[in-house]
Amino acid sequence: MSPNLRIVLVEPLYQGNVGSVARSMKNFGYNDLVLVNPCPLEGEARAMASHAQDLLKSATIESSLKEAIGDANLVIGTSGISGIKDDEHLRVPVYTPKQMKEHLKDADGTVAVLFGREDNGLSKEELKQCDMILTIPTSEIYPVMNIAHATTVVLYEMSEIEDPSRPIADRFDLELLYEHLGEMLDDIGHPEHKKEKTYLMLRRIFGRAVLTPREVQTLRGIFRGIQKSNENDE
Amino acid sequence: MSPNLRIVLVEPLYQGNVGSVARSMKNFGYNDLVLVNPCPLEGEARAMASHAQDLLKSATIESSLKEAIGDANLVIGTSGISGIKDDEHLRVPVYTPKQMKEHLKDADGTVAVLFGREDNGLSKEELKQCDMILTIPTSEIYPVMNIAHATTVVLYEMSEIEDPSRPIADRFDLELLYEHLGEMLDDIGHPEHKKEKTYLMLRRIFGRAVLTPREVQTLRGIFRGIQKSNENDE
Repeated sequence: MSPNLRIVLVEPLYQGNVGSVARSMKNFGYNDLVLVNPCPLEGEARAMASHAQDLLKSATIESSLKEAIGDANLVIGTSGISGIKDDEHLRVPVYTPKQMKEHLKDADGTVAVLFGREDNGLSKEELKQCDMILTIPTSEIYPVMNIAHATTVVLYEMSEIEDPSRPIADRFDLELLYEHLGEMLDDIGHPEHKKEKTYLMLRRIFGRAVLTPREVQTLRGIFRGIQKSNENDE
Repeated sequence: MSPNLRIVLVEPLYQGNVGSVARSMKNFGYNDLVLVNPCPLEGEARAMASHAQDLLKSATIESSLKEAIGDANLVIGTSGISGIKDDEHLRVPVYTPKQMKEHLKDADGTVAVLFGREDNGLSKEELKQCDMILTIPTSEIYPVMNIAHATTVVLYEMSEIEDPSRPIADRFDLELLYEHLGEMLDDIGHPEHKKEKTYLMLRRIFGRAVLTPREVQTLRGIFRGIQKSNENDE
């Protein structure tokens, strides 16, 4: 079980960013987008949304943060700046996206993640309404991320979309490949005193390459070819 | 040790995206940006780069991918689409950003990560020049990410910027807090047969909240206040 994510943009100033957030949400399979007093959404928002027009259109528009949060079970505020002196208690402890994922991995319910204005972020009053504060670890030289980039990182990290499967060759086929390797070294007359070391080196190279079944078949074909061409030479 | 990352944008079509990539690179502390035959970079590129004007200006412009790769030790191609039938061998096995980070964590040298055109990605010829293929796990419904979003995810994942420290209270102070908790339950006359369970429940709640030193001090102050007000009542 992992929670439903609601992305709340609080008074976004640039329509391109809103479209861009919609696109990213669709990329990662999310669709609960709420906008609090957004800028007008016109052509540029649609252009940046690209194939996420549906999501942009279905975004809920609210006139207050309270309405945007609605019945969400947990409210997470995002901040590009952590632990500022004069309002330290508002911003600590901060969670990174990875920590937040770990923290919420078994949680059920709706989690609202708030992103503030492009220029001033979330206000103190808005941060007070949050249960947790999230920050993305960035360079001290330039910590303020574009709002759509920050949303993308959070969605990427929270996404439960499974990694594409990366097929790994069967152990049995790999062992046949390694046998072939040894035979090939014999066939090409590799110096006897170097053979074991060279064999091990090749095994290590192919081992850490984590070969696919197809690659193992191709390599075995090549070694067979080498052996045959050697037999013909004799 | 972790490798130097070079971001290579191959024939980017939209200047806003180039600026946006520059911003993200500066956010995560990277500065090696190479552009192969980019679109003209004007006001919109600068606007999206925001406070990363320096990085946008210092980007190297090359007329071929070969020159852009230059002396990079490893070339990683990115693709929004994995394992297409007719050129399967070009795109498998794919690595996710997490797998790539794991794979390269002890590697030294320069790793060039290529991002293709916004409309057509990297060509087959370009993919052939890559040592590894990287893809970001996305929804099947809309897998094609904005190029700056994709770059952001890769940079975020590869970044070695340390998580902001999240101070955790000392065990000793926590134990004092828990002692206080028990005393408080006595003081307020919590039913004897429920006391142990309630005590454990409170301990679990505060435990999983992973309290900061400051929070522990504040809570102890509150419990002292409760105890005192009880003493006064007696």
